[in-house]
Amino acid sequence: MNYHMMAYILGNILRVEGLFLFAPTLLAIYYGEDKALFAFGLTIFIAMIVGSILTKAEPEDKKIYGREGFVIVALAWISMSFFGAMPFFFSGAIEGPVNCFFETVSGFTTTGASILTEIEGLPKSILFWRSFTHWIGGMGILVFMLAIMPTVDERSMHLMRAEAPGPLVGKLVPKVKSTAKLLYEMYIILTLLEIFLLILGGMPVFDSLVNTFSTAGTGGFAIKNASIAAYENPYFEYVITVFMFLFSVNFNLYYFLLVKDVKNIFKNEELRYFIAIIIGAIGIITLNILSLYPTFESAFRHAAFQVLAIISTTGFATANFDVWPELSKTLLVILMIVGACGGSTGGGLKVSRLILLLKMAGLEIRRIVHPRSVNIIKLDGHKVDEETIRGVGGFIIVYLFLTMGSFLLISLNNFDFTTSLTSVLSCLGNVGPGLARVGPIENYSLFSDFSKLVLCFNMLLGRLEIFPIIMLFAPAVWKRSYM
Amino acid sequence: MNYHMMAYILGNILRVEGLFLFAPTLLAIYYGEDKALFAFGLTIFIAMIVGSILTKAEPEDKKIYGREGFVIVALAWISMSFFGAMPFFFSGAIEGPVNCFFETVSGFTTTGASILTEIEGLPKSILFWRSFTHWIGGMGILVFMLAIMPTVDERSMHLMRAEAPGPLVGKLVPKVKSTAKLLYEMYIILTLLEIFLLILGGMPVFDSLVNTFSTAGTGGFAIKNASIAAYENPYFEYVITVFMFLFSVNFNLYYFLLVKDVKNIFKNEELRYFIAIIIGAIGIITLNILSLYPTFESAFRHAAFQVLAIISTTGFATANFDVWPELSKTLLVILMIVGACGGSTGGGLKVSRLILLLKMAGLEIRRIVHPRSVNIIKLDGHKVDEETIRGVGGFIIVYLFLTMGSFLLISLNNFDFTTSLTSVLSCLGNVGPGLARVGPIENYSLFSDFSKLVLCFNMLLGRLEIFPIIMLFAPAVWKRSYM
Repeated sequence: MNYHMMAYILGNILRVEGLFLFAPTLLAIYYGEDKALFAFGLTIFIAMIVGSILTKAEPEDKKIYGREGFVIVALAWISMSFFGAMPFFFSGAIEGPVNCFFETVSGFTTTGASILTEIEGLPKSILFWRSFTHWIGGMGILVFMLAIMPTVDERSMHLMRAEAPGPLVGKLVPKVKSTAKLLYEMYIILTLLEIFLLILGGMPVFDSLVNTFSTAGTGGFAIKNASIAAYENPYFEYVITVFMFLFSVNFNLYYFLLVKDVKNIFKNEELRYFIAIIIGAIGIITLNILSLYPTFESAFRHAAFQVLAIISTTGFATANFDVWPELSKTLLVILMIVGACGGSTGGGLKVSRLILLLKMAGLEIRRIVHPRSVNIIKLDGHKVDEETIRGVGGFIIVYLFLTMGSFLLISLNNFDFTTSLTSVLSCLGNVGPGLARVGPIENYSLFSDFSKLVLCFNMLLGRLEIFPIIMLFAPAVWKRSYM
Repeated sequence: MNYHMMAYILGNILRVEGLFLFAPTLLAIYYGEDKALFAFGLTIFIAMIVGSILTKAEPEDKKIYGREGFVIVALAWISMSFFGAMPFFFSGAIEGPVNCFFETVSGFTTTGASILTEIEGLPKSILFWRSFTHWIGGMGILVFMLAIMPTVDERSMHLMRAEAPGPLVGKLVPKVKSTAKLLYEMYIILTLLEIFLLILGGMPVFDSLVNTFSTAGTGGFAIKNASIAAYENPYFEYVITVFMFLFSVNFNLYYFLLVKDVKNIFKNEELRYFIAIIIGAIGIITLNILSLYPTFESAFRHAAFQVLAIISTTGFATANFDVWPELSKTLLVILMIVGACGGSTGGGLKVSRLILLLKMAGLEIRRIVHPRSVNIIKLDGHKVDEETIRGVGGFIIVYLFLTMGSFLLISLNNFDFTTSLTSVLSCLGNVGPGLARVGPIENYSLFSDFSKLVLCFNMLLGRLEIFPIIMLFAPAVWKRSYM
């Protein structure tokens, strides 16, 4: 383990986080929120000091291997959540250190599960920071760091691979730094576009910013107790529905659009499946909830909003889907597990992983029919290599064991079966709401501290796609000999 | 597809089923149950006629390939369920053809899920047949056929492999016929032993027989509305607990015991894991339910009984575990999925499959730490071949898709989340009871006919371990060219 390089990168992460914290600090000054201002100031101070100590000496050996990339990314996310929780704690906006940590992990991992029972009374700068963590976590803080660091070793691709979601992570352009920059540029353009459209519809500027951050990161923290339903404005609902879709699509596709390579967009199987799933789910749910709403349009609008809110793993709500018929609820829970496309800001298993799993299942069946046939798995017309396939298989197995284990630990709370299971699935998928006591009009405040920490663990596992977090517990990783 | 051989084997299955039907027929005569007698007589008549037509000409080409074995086994189980349901239908004991079919599929697949709301009023011969289907389905009717058929082609191993549970099915002795005979001999000895011990404790002879059939097949059909709890006798509960364990252990181990090869028993990893899971689960549940019972012994007894009833996938009940604390309920649901050992009469994923999945997960993690290391997976000290590992991976993937799909279809019933999900898990695992509206003191009568057929499909998928049933839907299998 290259400890020196590890410390150096972690220090840089904290300095970047300190930089991000200036935004809510300015807002605290603007709104005259003294307590929050003090809290942000103190956090920046601490983050900068610790960051400077860790980055004091640039390491000579900048090599990072795969396993080190995994460990660094895992530690980075835990420490940025730890520091990111400080403003909530110092300002007294959220009570108790576990609650502060939970809310921040939920923010950075873009889950959007909240322990807050009353959101609207909080200082605006605090609400801003809370949703801003979604925006930062969505595209990833390491990707951001790679985009702004003056010199980037090409081996840092390991970092990007560990942080970026999906089974297949590649570079858009030959250089890692340029890829990272491009991703953030597209991210910022889409963000600005949504802010503009919301303001155009008459949403207050502050609300437009904050709701856009939550959409962009596919997070789901709202600033109204009733989430997006509070605005009672179909225009906002449609705009946010569309952007939840746009942010849960692989960003590579926007690059193809940028370089006018439309052929590559149509060739993308993940996009086709994703759209098919969405259309199917919206159709089924619209018909299923038709009798609950006055018009077809309102049933369709709520179905479309919730399908996108869940499959994009944003978790916004315009309707209490916990009272919808069981078919719709089951379908939404399945979409929670499925999740968005790889290379997007969304969570879940990812549609591309699902496609590979489907093809692997099909292959097994074909092997029984034609035992001697040679079979390969293709995606987008290209052969998928053995390592990726094995990785997807391993992923789903570990995912299952983690789901079972977490479900068992959460059931210590003695909440009902549905609450326990859907809270785990929702946190692992970085969605936010579940069913029953964690339904869209409920929150996570009633869980014990132990359960909240288990769910934090699930959210981190979900966002970093399991293996980086698991590496932290592999003793072999920590041996000097693996330098 | 060798259609001639397929018809020949199916015909033989029906003749064997007709043979088995003589047992309840004699009972109907003994108890003077006229309606039942007529129903059994008519069923035997039909089965024998159809069986004779199908076996009229012995096929010259007796070759059976793997895929054909799968299809034959699937069709055999569906047709024997169809004919096995006739006595319920003709006697009027169960109302409606779907209910009759459901109860019989539940019987043969050793699930034990029932649509009956009132069991105790049924004719004794009908109750006998109902539990006898568990006994027949437990070890398998094709294995039985192989044991009694005068000439058995060694290629019939395909049939045994498709019917016997677990990821690794081998022959005990060089010949298929002898292996099949040995399995049934051990099965009969254990069955007689349990009957003897129950009678010894004072259980009526009829009850001892029927309850033993349900234990031996790890089925769980009871003849009292309150299941085993009705006897209010701890001795019976302990005896049945022990036998639920014995019938869910790989029968190969009894063969090793028979030939005094004790070393091979201790080397068996599946047994060690199985015992460890059982001890752990009993320990946790005993502590978790301690406050609900007057003495430690009664808490322990109920915990032990339910853990064995669920992990063996028998599904008997001595307590309404649906009112136990959530931790115990979650643990039981997880055990439902885990299931018994391969090569036993129990269902579920099988412990050996779970071990292989755990090892596959461990391997994936090791591969990230040491990318260039060569890793193999061992079980019982032997290397597991690639095909088995890929098969286990494929199995879990297909299992997941089927669970999701069935869950979605069952939720059309608009029962609560817990009921829908646990009914699917319980039927796929061939357990019987689930939670909430399919809890241990409830039954499956309230489901729609469509849901009942979906659950029948799940039970068959579970008992035959998915692939044989799926093969029925693969068009390629049915082409003449695959002779």
